[in-house]
Amino acid sequence: MTIAARMKELGVTLPKLTPPKFSYVPTTRAGNLLFVAGQIPQWEGEVRHKGRLGAGLTLEEGQAAAKLCALNLLAHVQAALGDLDQVERFLRVGVFVASTPEWVDTPKVANGASDLLAELFGESGKHARTTVGVASLPFGVCVEVDAIVALRS
Amino acid sequence: MTIAARMKELGVTLPKLTPPKFSYVPTTRAGNLLFVAGQIPQWEGEVRHKGRLGAGLTLEEGQAAAKLCALNLLAHVQAALGDLDQVERFLRVGVFVASTPEWVDTPKVANGASDLLAELFGESGKHARTTVGVASLPFGVCVEVDAIVALRS
Amino acid sequence: MTIAARMKELGVTLPKLTPPKFSYVPTTRAGNLLFVAGQIPQWEGEVRHKGRLGAGLTLEEGQAAAKLCALNLLAHVQAALGDLDQVERFLRVGVFVASTPEWVDTPKVANGASDLLAELFGESGKHARTTVGVASLPFGVCVEVDAIVALRS
Repeated sequence: MTIAARMKELGVTLPKLTPPKFSYVPTTRAGNLLFVAGQIPQWEGEVRHKGRLGAGLTLEEGQAAAKLCALNLLAHVQAALGDLDQVERFLRVGVFVASTPEWVDTPKVANGASDLLAELFGESGKHARTTVGVASLPFGVCVEVDAIVALRS
Repeated sequence: MTIAARMKELGVTLPKLTPPKFSYVPTTRAGNLLFVAGQIPQWEGEVRHKGRLGAGLTLEEGQAAAKLCALNLLAHVQAALGDLDQVERFLRVGVFVASTPEWVDTPKVANGASDLLAELFGESGKHARTTVGVASLPFGVCVEVDAIVALRS
Repeated sequence: MTIAARMKELGVTLPKLTPPKFSYVPTTRAGNLLFVAGQIPQWEGEVRHKGRLGAGLTLEEGQAAAKLCALNLLAHVQAALGDLDQVERFLRVGVFVASTPEWVDTPKVANGASDLLAELFGESGKHARTTVGVASLPFGVCVEVDAIVALRS
């Protein structure tokens, strides 16, 4: 089954991409490695999920934000490769969660992104992950997710 | 001398690994690159060194935490490769230190991990390092360490 | 035009490098990938731009700090490769900005580094970027920048 078919089956829709606002690009490639810029929870240009975990936001909202970051990440991978079936493996996923010092459930927040990748890609979606709680994120969002991806040669 | 022999000489023991608790994996590989997930200071499932630098923890405790993160990192590299002699080079090590805004000795904390790698692996253990102070870390620990490792082909 | 000529044209001067103070190295290489350690805003050993965004520092000062980090990064790439024309692509740039929770203009701060790379290297300078606001940085500086670079083979 293609990833596109799997997405349809699971009811997963990717956002349309908006042009980057700053002097960098969403993806770069070297050989069979694809580097994806940090993605924030936005839907087609509309920034969502502002705030910090431990200061008003619930775990569920954090997880939804992480999932939305992952959808944007997938949209950029798809735009770079043509289709998502070129993905051999999500190698490394970085998850940054805007948190108070007291909030320590960052891994559960990050699962919002990790679970989606595993659900869509199976073993290929299982990645080494680094999850940290940070002081603030661009535009005040609560989660940012980046990735390094191995491509089929 | 093998790394195992060097560890014995230095009295370094690696922890037994516990199964990951979330939907990701400890290591991924692409060609001769190994990506290791962020490791926290735990000993065989028991989480240690909770708290933040600048808010009660001493530099020495931070360094011990960083060293324990590195031991878990090495245990996962060993589990992935069979033995640690397959390591050609620790390329990049990320060290995240839970800190108050006033705590700026993060590099000294990070040395708890870096020194161990250099001690065990010599030149191969010397890595490019990124060290930052963050708001919070998983389970409330004070240090997290991840790595990208080059393997002998 | 060589990058050295382009730097001259733009009036960009790189700092002389000072020996690293800790047990790590500024760059490591695997195949055609170069990993550059997190760089702080220093000029030939003199640390500059201390403080946090949102707590007294202006956006302009943050951008100047990010640019100075990038200059140090370029100096290390040049030291590793002999000349900067060996750079094929800046693949991934990480920008860490010491911030209060309320400061959310981290991408604008990061542009201080990104714009310099694009200005000097054109398309090759355009990178995937991850920008986060952190609690504290080494020596109390306000920005830290690291990179993964693809080299011409």
